[in-house]
Amino acid sequence: MKPAAEHTQDSEQYKKKQRFFKSLLTIYGRKPVLEALQNPQLRFFKLHLADSNKPQGIIAEIIAIAEQRGIEIQYHDKKALSRISKNAKQDQGVAADIQLKQYISVEEFISNKPQGNCSLIALDRITNPQNLGMIIRSVCAGYIDGLILPQKGCAALSPLVIKASTGTVFKTPLIYSDSIEQALELLSNTGATICTLSSHASTSLFDYQAKGTTVYVLGNETEGVSPAVQALSQHQLCIPMNNEVESLNVAITAALIAFKH
Amino acid sequence: MKPAAEHTQDSEQYKKKQRFFKSLLTIYGRKPVLEALQNPQLRFFKLHLADSNKPQGIIAEIIAIAEQRGIEIQYHDKKALSRISKNAKQDQGVAADIQLKQYISVEEFISNKPQGNCSLIALDRITNPQNLGMIIRSVCAGYIDGLILPQKGCAALSPLVIKASTGTVFKTPLIYSDSIEQALELLSNTGATICTLSSHASTSLFDYQAKGTTVYVLGNETEGVSPAVQALSQHQLCIPMNNEVESLNVAITAALIAFKH
Repeated sequence: MKPAAEHTQDSEQYKKKQRFFKSLLTIYGRKPVLEALQNPQLRFFKLHLADSNKPQGIIAEIIAIAEQRGIEIQYHDKKALSRISKNAKQDQGVAADIQLKQYISVEEFISNKPQGNCSLIALDRITNPQNLGMIIRSVCAGYIDGLILPQKGCAALSPLVIKASTGTVFKTPLIYSDSIEQALELLSNTGATICTLSSHASTSLFDYQAKGTTVYVLGNETEGVSPAVQALSQHQLCIPMNNEVESLNVAITAALIAFKH
Repeated sequence: MKPAAEHTQDSEQYKKKQRFFKSLLTIYGRKPVLEALQNPQLRFFKLHLADSNKPQGIIAEIIAIAEQRGIEIQYHDKKALSRISKNAKQDQGVAADIQLKQYISVEEFISNKPQGNCSLIALDRITNPQNLGMIIRSVCAGYIDGLILPQKGCAALSPLVIKASTGTVFKTPLIYSDSIEQALELLSNTGATICTLSSHASTSLFDYQAKGTTVYVLGNETEGVSPAVQALSQHQLCIPMNNEVESLNVAITAALIAFKH
């Protein structure tokens, strides 16, 4: 049996390691990884390759750039690689861990929260990769201090998402959390105002005067926000619409928030 | 040889007929046509079926609703049907002509132009069906008096477009023209202001004070507006963006215009 102090140290180290791995953005797929490697502004932790890849064509290109940039290459069997990519169907035997300054945990965001007004968009089960990519692109271009991307429930940052984001995913302020509820509870405890978007609400997004930290939550494409998220929100906001249109595409809603004047 | 007066009458009748056919919105594909027939607010001119369709399943359903609603059914061989649908690959042997009050020519729009300020969005070679459907949905929901949809250069109102519009295509004020240039020239001659959206412009869309009839032209997804269209425009407007993002998705841009405050 180890003495108690050593145990604590071990667990501290384990937590630190875990935090580090969570802070890595892992992407996969041959083309997305190649394009990311070609971007000199991105810092890589590791390149992961399935040992079944033949070192020719795009794989040879990927290896050449990684070697030239001094990025560690780790080889895995196919199963181990798919545990890293978390997507055996789409990884094509290639994954890469990227270290991004603007990819932080909700706890880190809270401890460095900007002074004054601050707007966040949080996603509750956005499952369509096209929508997620478009949301990322609009948030990156618009006036939003962070996009909360829960690791449970939302589409993964797949090649399709990266493509739909037109590569902006690597420069968007992203805030990760385990679940949307966890992120909203932590933010709520520090005084943030949680707003959900709903076509049934009576207050218009455009009339709403945001103060302090405001989190706008966008819900699932067909179901909207979940009851649990609704219960955490202080305000329900709508976008007033003509011609009895019932709802807007979620990426459109995100853009209207991101460019709200 | 016919006397001159008769000639004129013939050609008048021909023109009238041509105008009538142009004013019909022709949709195709089994599911889109079935769903449109199920909408009691839509008025149909004719249902077109390929005589090779077996009258069972969804085709039987389509025929039953058309008969119940007293809609004329015309049978064609496959080639003739694809001349009507203009899309042999996707028509699935089914097309329908819809008579929509809010589907008008640019000439009709001009002769009934609303008094005061009026905003139009015009599309210059928007070829992605998903984008076109999303633009229609946002225009329908937003604060726009008409969407100019040239018959040359833009995506057709295919099943994909109708789906992405979530059915709003049938209640959106649509203005058809042969080409974008023709529409802009006619509108320009009646005093409308033509604005193109461009990431290189210095005036912000949000600062621009629109007066009278304003046409916002959105250009092709990769090439932007064409030089011919650029030459017809008085103002170039941009959407100011952060993080060195170069452009927004065209459907996002349309929504920011449609909900501009």
